[in-house]
Amino acid sequence: MNKIYFTPGPSQLFYTVDEHIKQALKLQVPSISHRGQAFKNIYEHTVSQLRTLVSLPDNYQVLFTNSATEIWERIIQNCVREESYHLVNGAFSDKFHQTAKLMGKNASKVEAAEGSAVNIKDVSISPEVELIGLAHNETSTGVAQPLSDIYALRDKYPDPLIAVDVVSSIPYIDIDFEKVDMVYFSVQKCFGLPAGLGVWLVNDRAIAKARALASKGTNIAKYRQLIAMADEAARFQTTSTPNVLDIYLLGKVAEDMNAKGLDMIRRETDYKSAVLYHCIKEHPNLECFIKDTAYQSKTTVVAKTNGSPKKFIDPLNKLGLVIGAGYGKYKDEHIRIANFPTHSKEQIELLVDQLNKH
Amino acid sequence: MNKIYFTPGPSQLFYTVDEHIKQALKLQVPSISHRGQAFKNIYEHTVSQLRTLVSLPDNYQVLFTNSATEIWERIIQNCVREESYHLVNGAFSDKFHQTAKLMGKNASKVEAAEGSAVNIKDVSISPEVELIGLAHNETSTGVAQPLSDIYALRDKYPDPLIAVDVVSSIPYIDIDFEKVDMVYFSVQKCFGLPAGLGVWLVNDRAIAKARALASKGTNIAKYRQLIAMADEAARFQTTSTPNVLDIYLLGKVAEDMNAKGLDMIRRETDYKSAVLYHCIKEHPNLECFIKDTAYQSKTTVVAKTNGSPKKFIDPLNKLGLVIGAGYGKYKDEHIRIANFPTHSKEQIELLVDQLNKH
Repeated sequence: MNKIYFTPGPSQLFYTVDEHIKQALKLQVPSISHRGQAFKNIYEHTVSQLRTLVSLPDNYQVLFTNSATEIWERIIQNCVREESYHLVNGAFSDKFHQTAKLMGKNASKVEAAEGSAVNIKDVSISPEVELIGLAHNETSTGVAQPLSDIYALRDKYPDPLIAVDVVSSIPYIDIDFEKVDMVYFSVQKCFGLPAGLGVWLVNDRAIAKARALASKGTNIAKYRQLIAMADEAARFQTTSTPNVLDIYLLGKVAEDMNAKGLDMIRRETDYKSAVLYHCIKEHPNLECFIKDTAYQSKTTVVAKTNGSPKKFIDPLNKLGLVIGAGYGKYKDEHIRIANFPTHSKEQIELLVDQLNKH
Repeated sequence: MNKIYFTPGPSQLFYTVDEHIKQALKLQVPSISHRGQAFKNIYEHTVSQLRTLVSLPDNYQVLFTNSATEIWERIIQNCVREESYHLVNGAFSDKFHQTAKLMGKNASKVEAAEGSAVNIKDVSISPEVELIGLAHNETSTGVAQPLSDIYALRDKYPDPLIAVDVVSSIPYIDIDFEKVDMVYFSVQKCFGLPAGLGVWLVNDRAIAKARALASKGTNIAKYRQLIAMADEAARFQTTSTPNVLDIYLLGKVAEDMNAKGLDMIRRETDYKSAVLYHCIKEHPNLECFIKDTAYQSKTTVVAKTNGSPKKFIDPLNKLGLVIGAGYGKYKDEHIRIANFPTHSKEQIELLVDQLNKH
């Protein structure tokens, strides 16, 4: 049976991906050299489509890693000498904080109350902090930190770099790139691609910081050194063999999204999320995990279940509707539903009809 | 025009891969959760087929990274406190040595003469060395370090871990895993898969070393900490979202190779390499870069060209036969030809016919 995956990543492939993969095989994309012109053209096309899609300013570069998880390490390795500060509102922002600590940094954090975003009034950042890390959209809990909070941080603390995890909210999120320094995501969420590619959008300020650290000898150049990555990216090259197929597919999906129009994608996302939250609110056995509507993610909808989540997951699965379990400690308490660009209004309505029967 | 890629990675896809990708799309492999049973089954199948194919002992684990380049960093990070030693016989083994140095290790090396493997008599390893790194098959130069040399190292220096780059020689290489501690490769070479997956075969001795370092606090746990990777792998899980599609495809191709029989693949490889080296030897405008036949790689054949390599590369490309240029500093001096399991005898004979015309 053909299933519809509403899991928050890996998720349903974007609806054009099957055809793009078949075309990539015809064009022998996986066989071309990553040092040749054909690959450079693919990289350039992907960057160009992505720039258009998310209105990326010229002072940002598009770098490829293998996952967003990897990017945590790259950020700390390349841009932090001693101190980082983390807004923790779920498992993934917590792991970023942990990564910084394990890498020997003085990494402090402020934590959100359960089921909420960080109260921006609780943030207090010392002058030594070099980088602020936060997740705009926590895939684990379905909480979204309002963009206005991020901008307020920038206004109050103009010096530290700001790194924003948009793993499960880009390209829905309409972020002002001038008010942050880097933004990163994986392609298996909203872009609906096979996992195995991380995308790191980095501005010149972050690269300058990496250069400054390197010149002091405190930045250890490794497998993916930011300076080397940026130098290679400037000529559409990578520091090692990349996931060429996924880079090709990302460019094609971004092109499809541009053709459809991001405005339309955003409007549909809003509509579908309203349908989902309405269903949860009215449902006798479901309850929004994030109470404050200002903090509710539009792309990752999380509900507490009355009883085991299996009461929903299992029967829906039999109907070919695959929803996610809660993340980590919430495994037996939550269901998670992805509301990504590939999910049509009709599919979400179908899902809601079935949720209402359980 | 459908081309045949004889480039030494990315290369021609293994001849069953197109169909396996189409089947993966039908089965929605890229959409399944990497935390669910369906993924565990895929991981287990891939490990089982790979174990059978290369006769991997039980005390080895199969871990997934995103590339072999990444594995250099992981090895140093997890298994070396202070000292490593490197046999350098080309650009890739040199980069591994550089990686160790950049990571702050006391990394020494012995270098091969140009166009040769390391003379094992030149190796002198101090008792402080914790790890010996070498490339069995240097994709950059087409030199193969004889396995007997590796075993001799083990006999003479039983204490350091031995890490062998088999990026472009596995599964052709018939290595005795008891005489080394880890072996690593990327899937876009002999396995003929899309790039984006590294495979790290690690024995219990290497994992014990990582544990010992961790217990002393000298091993910094990061994004891919060996202990965590091994713990997850024991239940067919990964520390972060992996390239599920490539893991699936690797299992399928290993299964196909098992069905054909590795003996047959090895015999064909020997035959095809003999045809290639014979052509180069007899050719008025080509010459083997590696003179000593004992050091000539069977899977990556490198020739010096009389004049520009473009005299071969360009006209053959027009015929749909894509061969590689020299690597790095040899770009304008060499051609490189992959002789991987996907390349049939007929394809190699066709290539040789055309080489003979130029």
